[in-house]
Amino acid sequence: MALLNCRFRSDVLDMETTLTALVPEHAERPSPVLYLLHGLSDDDSSWLRRTAIERYAEPYGLAVIMPRVERSYYTDMARGPAWYRFLSEELPAVSARLFPISQRREETFVAGVSMGGYGAFKWALREPGRFAAAASLSGSLDIVAVGEREAPPPEYPWIFEHAPAGGEDDLLALLAHYRQPQPCQPALFQWCGSEDYLLEANRRFRDACRDTALTLDYGEGAGDHQWRYWDRQIQRVICWLPLERPRATPPT
Amino acid sequence: MALLNCRFRSDVLDMETTLTALVPEHAERPSPVLYLLHGLSDDDSSWLRRTAIERYAEPYGLAVIMPRVERSYYTDMARGPAWYRFLSEELPAVSARLFPISQRREETFVAGVSMGGYGAFKWALREPGRFAAAASLSGSLDIVAVGEREAPPPEYPWIFEHAPAGGEDDLLALLAHYRQPQPCQPALFQWCGSEDYLLEANRRFRDACRDTALTLDYGEGAGDHQWRYWDRQIQRVICWLPLERPRATPPT
Amino acid sequence: MALLNCRFRSDVLDMETTLTALVPEHAERPSPVLYLLHGLSDDDSSWLRRTAIERYAEPYGLAVIMPRVERSYYTDMARGPAWYRFLSEELPAVSARLFPISQRREETFVAGVSMGGYGAFKWALREPGRFAAAASLSGSLDIVAVGEREAPPPEYPWIFEHAPAGGEDDLLALLAHYRQPQPCQPALFQWCGSEDYLLEANRRFRDACRDTALTLDYGEGAGDHQWRYWDRQIQRVICWLPLERPRATPPT
Amino acid sequence: MALLNCRFRSDVLDMETTLTALVPEHAERPSPVLYLLHGLSDDDSSWLRRTAIERYAEPYGLAVIMPRVERSYYTDMARGPAWYRFLSEELPAVSARLFPISQRREETFVAGVSMGGYGAFKWALREPGRFAAAASLSGSLDIVAVGEREAPPPEYPWIFEHAPAGGEDDLLALLAHYRQPQPCQPALFQWCGSEDYLLEANRRFRDACRDTALTLDYGEGAGDHQWRYWDRQIQRVICWLPLERPRATPPT
Repeated sequence: MALLNCRFRSDVLDMETTLTALVPEHAERPSPVLYLLHGLSDDDSSWLRRTAIERYAEPYGLAVIMPRVERSYYTDMARGPAWYRFLSEELPAVSARLFPISQRREETFVAGVSMGGYGAFKWALREPGRFAAAASLSGSLDIVAVGEREAPPPEYPWIFEHAPAGGEDDLLALLAHYRQPQPCQPALFQWCGSEDYLLEANRRFRDACRDTALTLDYGEGAGDHQWRYWDRQIQRVICWLPLERPRATPPT
Repeated sequence: MALLNCRFRSDVLDMETTLTALVPEHAERPSPVLYLLHGLSDDDSSWLRRTAIERYAEPYGLAVIMPRVERSYYTDMARGPAWYRFLSEELPAVSARLFPISQRREETFVAGVSMGGYGAFKWALREPGRFAAAASLSGSLDIVAVGEREAPPPEYPWIFEHAPAGGEDDLLALLAHYRQPQPCQPALFQWCGSEDYLLEANRRFRDACRDTALTLDYGEGAGDHQWRYWDRQIQRVICWLPLERPRATPPT
Repeated sequence: MALLNCRFRSDVLDMETTLTALVPEHAERPSPVLYLLHGLSDDDSSWLRRTAIERYAEPYGLAVIMPRVERSYYTDMARGPAWYRFLSEELPAVSARLFPISQRREETFVAGVSMGGYGAFKWALREPGRFAAAASLSGSLDIVAVGEREAPPPEYPWIFEHAPAGGEDDLLALLAHYRQPQPCQPALFQWCGSEDYLLEANRRFRDACRDTALTLDYGEGAGDHQWRYWDRQIQRVICWLPLERPRATPPT
Repeated sequence: MALLNCRFRSDVLDMETTLTALVPEHAERPSPVLYLLHGLSDDDSSWLRRTAIERYAEPYGLAVIMPRVERSYYTDMARGPAWYRFLSEELPAVSARLFPISQRREETFVAGVSMGGYGAFKWALREPGRFAAAASLSGSLDIVAVGEREAPPPEYPWIFEHAPAGGEDDLLALLAHYRQPQPCQPALFQWCGSEDYLLEANRRFRDACRDTALTLDYGEGAGDHQWRYWDRQIQRVICWLPLERPRATPPT
């Protein structure tokens, strides 16, 4: 695949920013696309460096778009940039402009790790018409609980002026929209390690899904909050995506 | 503009290679495109580093594709890779696949410096149906004379098994095809510094053009074989291109 | 020179960030170093893309370190990261660790454009023992006035909880420390275009310098707030730096 | 670790080239270093993209230098650049100049895959005073046999004017120098997949080592000529390196 280190000007952020993209360079039609989101201390290069993501996506002809959102929790900050707007409006527009990626819902996916798992589910639940599927690995899925920790991330009060409970940044509240079947429902994949400090938050999200019409593939396995586990699980995510291409063998 | 450092697999070269691209990230239609070629010791980053090319192209909405061809003289080497085929077939195909660039002849241009000036004129004269215009700055336009120097570049015999005189790599021979007006004729721009060791070769090319139906904008000015002059002249080239957009002021 | 696109983990920011560096690859001793700071909407690639900085620094054997600080005004934000600490502590430490740059005050310089001109003078006036010289091009030198504009940058209140007047982020206040000659005084270079909206702020700084023991090279010239002027002026800055190497000719 | 995409001018190649480096950004002393060599169709980014090399090297504080040598077989070409000289002379000199890496033999290692396994063993056997250890994964260790294939790589005759048997590019011939114990002998690690078309060549090298004083760790395992196996084996290589740092757990 073509690896593209891209610098571009974001109008939403009003500054230059970066993204990393993997795009099949010899495909004949627009490629299915996975938006792949990073965690709290990462950037747009983290998936490339911490896993072999290109090798996993290549057999599927899957393009991968990796943005950079800093420590924003993929949220329009009360005192800071509009990162959710950047993610959900400008990033897809710029990506569609620059790269030969499919615009069809059936071929559009989002996944992420930790803070990025939260971002992936938030984007998919708020825009179900855009995504056929979404995956969270060790996602920080209970954003209200993040603020109630003894030591929340220092930027938490700059992101959320008021507690996000019940609003559009609260995944558990977003699930309420799916109590009845909806015309568009992204398939969900969720995994968390059994030693991960986010395990309870993940189980809460899983339990809350049971009251909805959503389809959730849920898994736990040995592991704590580390890339060595995500390197394996992202391969399972890609195998799980409803891609129309021939499948490779999932990792053992 | 978006700056894209791109690594991709070349089938012609049978290896990974790099290109640097500048692409308007907010345009609504495919952008006019300038293929911009480097000199003998350069690579795909040289125009970016040695000039402010992005700043010059931006007001015109002009995409710029900068490949890497090493010391190949943009030629299918007798003992080495098929660099001309890479340049003239694979590079435009991959660029059209990856980037939103125009495929119209009226919006496709090529330019280069030194060895890249030779490459630009060679490509344009051999494929006049692809390019509306081509420019050479201090171009190494007499490839036969390069081989007759006291110390030709060491790869010269690996590039050309036999002297290239009269063949498709000989610009002066290619000009013969243009003695009569042709359906497609790229407009030509040529500049060379008056202290440049390639001045005589440039004048020979200019003189040979006089026997053709081609339109050549020829200029000389103070300067030897250095980027400080090309940084200025490439601005003139961009102003000269038959772009449909509003023009900026040429440099003084 | 070697061009290094560097991604590294910042402990101060608690995230991955980027810097761009130019380093002489064949020097025998640590290279003199210029920290070169970007403006409000730029990033660490802006100097590379908007000027031919590598070409200007090369004859002097001058390394150039270009950090990325977003829209922070090089300030420890009231509600945001400690960007000044990142700039003044972590960046030089990481740079000294990663690159062969001089640690001698006589060979350490800082310059910047617009917001980066402010950053350059702030860093130099607060740490005169680190820098032999500092330069500002079209610098945003009156940070108090920035907040008093009709439409200050949206992040201004997140940067400065209280008006910065009289504090360590107020250049005019910092000048007070230099009323008497100090053991270390960086030489200052200041330029602003006569059409620049920051001209009055620049003149206020110039005037305030008259009451100090500092040496200021002040210049104005035709131009507004654009890179085409800074591309020329940065060449003058490099010529002006008290480097021990043979000088090139300044641009005409 | 710091990820450095580096472009620099090679004097040996007389052109700009690239290398990718991973360097601990917070270490207090020069880091032990692994030169990591790519295969026939790869470039300096292949290890980064096809494995999670940064994640594996990080716990050891190990710097990783990844050059680009194209399809050269790490050899001074009969009709082409002096790639072995570039590798063995210029690359370490430039790396030592640019990055804080150890110059001690005890902390210097080389490894590679396929063509790069050949390069790693060639460099180590020809310069045993430089390396404490060398590793080959699915290495192309019988260069004479490569030329005797039905379809050797097209560049083979440009690399080797005469068959390399018995010369300094023939690993089996180089082994003859080690029939008696030598003052410096790099520890060797060799692995090949049992389905790899290079298995017989690997066994020949292994057998030839038995007549020498060299210490060879030899392994075979399920796998053919693919990165999925090398991603696992490079972790074993790093665990095997005689590093003085605390060890992580090898992959299961």
